[in-house]
Amino acid sequence: LDYQHVQVPFEITLWIMLASLAKIGFHLYNKLPSVVPESCLLIFVGLIMGGIIYGLNDRSPPVMDSDIFFLYLLPPIVLDAGYFMPSRPFFENIGTILLYAVVGTIWNVFGIGFSLYGICQVKAFRLQDVSLLHNLLFGSLIAAVDPVAVLAVFEEIHVNEKLHILVFGESLLNDAVTVVLYKLFRSFCEMPTIKSVDVFAGVGKFFVVGLGGVLVGLSFGFTAAFTTRFTKDIRVIEPLFVFLYSYLSYLTAEMFHLSGIVAIISCAMGMKRYVEANISLKSHTTVKYFMKMWSSVSDTLIFIFLGVSTIGENHEWNWPYICFTVIFCLIWRALGVLVLTFFVNRFHVNTITSKDQFIIAYGGLRGAICFSLVFLLPDFHRKKLFIAATTVVILFTVFIQGMTIRPLVDLLAVKRKRESAPTVGEQIHIRFLDHLLAGIEDISGHWGQYYWKDKLEYFNSKYLQKILLREYDQPKSSIVLLYEKLERKHAMELAQAGQLGHSPAQPPFLSSDRTVITDQKLEDTLNPAVLDNIQEILARNLYRIRRTGPAYNRHTLPGDSEPAEQAKEILILRHKSL
Amino acid sequence: LDYQHVQVPFEITLWIMLASLAKIGFHLYNKLPSVVPESCLLIFVGLIMGGIIYGLNDRSPPVMDSDIFFLYLLPPIVLDAGYFMPSRPFFENIGTILLYAVVGTIWNVFGIGFSLYGICQVKAFRLQDVSLLHNLLFGSLIAAVDPVAVLAVFEEIHVNEKLHILVFGESLLNDAVTVVLYKLFRSFCEMPTIKSVDVFAGVGKFFVVGLGGVLVGLSFGFTAAFTTRFTKDIRVIEPLFVFLYSYLSYLTAEMFHLSGIVAIISCAMGMKRYVEANISLKSHTTVKYFMKMWSSVSDTLIFIFLGVSTIGENHEWNWPYICFTVIFCLIWRALGVLVLTFFVNRFHVNTITSKDQFIIAYGGLRGAICFSLVFLLPDFHRKKLFIAATTVVILFTVFIQGMTIRPLVDLLAVKRKRESAPTVGEQIHIRFLDHLLAGIEDISGHWGQYYWKDKLEYFNSKYLQKILLREYDQPKSSIVLLYEKLERKHAMELAQAGQLGHSPAQPPFLSSDRTVITDQKLEDTLNPAVLDNIQEILARNLYRIRRTGPAYNRHTLPGDSEPAEQAKEILILRHKSL
Repeated sequence: LDYQHVQVPFEITLWIMLASLAKIGFHLYNKLPSVVPESCLLIFVGLIMGGIIYGLNDRSPPVMDSDIFFLYLLPPIVLDAGYFMPSRPFFENIGTILLYAVVGTIWNVFGIGFSLYGICQVKAFRLQDVSLLHNLLFGSLIAAVDPVAVLAVFEEIHVNEKLHILVFGESLLNDAVTVVLYKLFRSFCEMPTIKSVDVFAGVGKFFVVGLGGVLVGLSFGFTAAFTTRFTKDIRVIEPLFVFLYSYLSYLTAEMFHLSGIVAIISCAMGMKRYVEANISLKSHTTVKYFMKMWSSVSDTLIFIFLGVSTIGENHEWNWPYICFTVIFCLIWRALGVLVLTFFVNRFHVNTITSKDQFIIAYGGLRGAICFSLVFLLPDFHRKKLFIAATTVVILFTVFIQGMTIRPLVDLLAVKRKRESAPTVGEQIHIRFLDHLLAGIEDISGHWGQYYWKDKLEYFNSKYLQKILLREYDQPKSSIVLLYEKLERKHAMELAQAGQLGHSPAQPPFLSSDRTVITDQKLEDTLNPAVLDNIQEILARNLYRIRRTGPAYNRHTLPGDSEPAEQAKEILILRHKSL
Repeated sequence: LDYQHVQVPFEITLWIMLASLAKIGFHLYNKLPSVVPESCLLIFVGLIMGGIIYGLNDRSPPVMDSDIFFLYLLPPIVLDAGYFMPSRPFFENIGTILLYAVVGTIWNVFGIGFSLYGICQVKAFRLQDVSLLHNLLFGSLIAAVDPVAVLAVFEEIHVNEKLHILVFGESLLNDAVTVVLYKLFRSFCEMPTIKSVDVFAGVGKFFVVGLGGVLVGLSFGFTAAFTTRFTKDIRVIEPLFVFLYSYLSYLTAEMFHLSGIVAIISCAMGMKRYVEANISLKSHTTVKYFMKMWSSVSDTLIFIFLGVSTIGENHEWNWPYICFTVIFCLIWRALGVLVLTFFVNRFHVNTITSKDQFIIAYGGLRGAICFSLVFLLPDFHRKKLFIAATTVVILFTVFIQGMTIRPLVDLLAVKRKRESAPTVGEQIHIRFLDHLLAGIEDISGHWGQYYWKDKLEYFNSKYLQKILLREYDQPKSSIVLLYEKLERKHAMELAQAGQLGHSPAQPPFLSSDRTVITDQKLEDTLNPAVLDNIQEILARNLYRIRRTGPAYNRHTLPGDSEPAEQAKEILILRHKSL
């Protein structure tokens, strides 16, 4: 037995296997996931596993490594989120989202930090050795809403699109603020004195981190789109580029201390439309499928690890500090949402209702990012207290808030997401109104979102598409594209229902009188559907002989190549004749 | 700049990116890959890169780590090979393949080992310090034909199926022999004295290693099939299980010192038919696509690394030893093929022609497996000589033999692979003959391959399918399955050609007399195809409104769910009415 040799890949594979099997297990009993969010179940599995490891080894189970989390587990989830981001509601609400993400997060950091510092001044709590800077540092890591936790809960409750994008967008974009404030306070903790110039540098840094992330992401995204222009002869590696370039954008951003999350989201959103147009349909299915699969597994692993890491001896328990942390997290978030929404509503016609405000405040779940950040703190004597407080906040928000948010949404009758996709009629109307509003804004000299959208669209069709798309000389109308998609779906459904290509005339040998007599007997021996099928195949075979497929090659998939034109024509002729 | 933090994933991603870009580069110029095999081009790229690294750093570039090769790069290629293995020719020729793989490899090992020992006895060559055991050890690693190299060359020359499977099957199955002999000789090298019992233990070990690999592989394969029975509600993680279980079978086999290659091939071949029946069509596309993609990238990386590792100072040059190694490799393989084929042809009606024999002997390419094994050798004073000899043999076989085999195949007019897939008529005949031969074998009491195949098929449909398939109560005839596949393809082709669902009657507003007058003008402003499409969409929309899709969920893909039955019926009705 040579376990040492295969240990690393073997254990990784086993963990992923455990995560996948846990997922299957939950879905075998349909009732369970509809009551308890999957994230809670997974943390619970993790807690049990942690307990088992602790019981067997009699020492703390290994905690989730921050490097593993930030380098390997987080990127797939964020990539999936960015790639499938509904871009219209996102850009329509970008101002509100940024306000919540930037101002809201700063508000929370300072609110929580200062009020916890206040608590530390109470002598009875024995917390006087926790300085203001340490409290602010703790505030900076505990204030940020976690995209993984938010996604896990909000995708199951199906609130309306605007509400979803507000909470989810905030959780993604606050990364830039968190990165800056966390690093700023951590470096302040290690500095002997703090000059005011450092504080201003921190404010400037925020713009660098955020906009730098966008820039890195977009440049990698456009490079990816450009690369897929040249993959026509080698379709099998197309999906790879989507993953490679997105991951490189994340790593590059992290390398330069920019926001990796912002970078990978910009990369995914930037490349999506060009890549989709360039790569083949099968490659696209693979990209979508693999992204979902990967993010789903990462997500599962994160929650299981969260549970496992909770068990152990690296906690210092202090009732007042931990309780007040939970309370302040709730209060400051609620206050922040109320104040910011007040300003937002003054400038918008389509306001955020008080029900929506409640859900936004209540949906501020904390998760694995806080957890990883608290372990990355430099060693000091109260680190274990911070770890305990963070763990409690995460468990409180995921379990209590996560499990009660669905009943609350039902109780408050929060507006839900519409179940059906918009009809083509609606889509045409929306596009018409967009053009109209862009025109109005242009005439009135107001540079609003429609104006910029129109300009961007012009720039895209004039320059970007010509560089990034393979067949830029034949831009297809999006209605034609939609039509093609519907046709494909229609064709697949007909084929599934077995209704395609059936000749209206009865096939000759079934309509002969012999068949009528032995009809009952025939049905006993041969299923008529099978008979039909055999006839169909034999009929088709008459032209299939003429078609020749290319020989096996490892770089192509069977049936990947275009069918011979001749065969296609015969097919069409035959279909017309029916 | 914080490069340290992201170094590992960043460099891995960059290497993969380099490999993918190199692949795109070759395929941009179609003429290049048709003359020079891709493997040669990739080694060449590696040599250049190695030269650059050597020139810049003034020290040897890093050699390919054997662990990385065996644990991460080899499994995807072998999995791909096993999953897409044409099972019929493989099992029809399994006897011949095993003979080549087992007896042939042993013949080569001892032939090369003893004759090199003879060379070492010549005083003028100054090789007298290389013992017989070291020569045999060297023989055991240089004798084995490499599946990666064989695959890379043979998939491009399209020889007939039997010839292909003979060379390729041998290269895969000789792994068990190589593992046993290599480890045996290596342990002999470290033992003070060798008893005869050790030699017999080695012979027994071969069966353990080979059959153990098959057993491990099959058990993981069946577990994988069983697991996919329960993934109906969570389609996105289906592809994962195919990869996880195959990889686990490889790692488990390696852990117990069994043949990992044999294990992963058995796993892939064992699970394929059940998994394909259980998982959804999109999952299956993803599995196939990702397997191809992964093996393609692994393959590329291996050849680039081979090139990079060649550059450097870990070679000891000795003209006679290296030249004689190349000569003996060629001679002993040719002799082995001749002798073994003589025996094979005596027992078969469908003999292996002398042209085929030449190609089998000439196609014995060596590759990265030898290279990794030679670096795994324990340190002794002549290791660098062995490294040099191995490198030369690999480069000789891949470059000289790999580049000349295509012209030789053309020159000798070796029977090629048939270009077209067998027609349904042929398939029905083949199956009919199989049944007939199984009956004849059963009556005559001869337990031949048809008898066993029939028994296996019975066991499969009686027991295995019931356990491993989700819908075992409705076993579909394979002809019906083929029909469904053809229907899907047909539907897609019709949809692509835009011929689906066009109503034979002229659409009302185009057939009104107003249209006739403004026909020319209409064509100027609106493309008639676009008009048709719009009408089509609007017409379809009348029933699309009734259909409601499920809301967004991260575990499902858009359009993944089954369409509502009502909508399906409307569709069918509508199609019938046309």
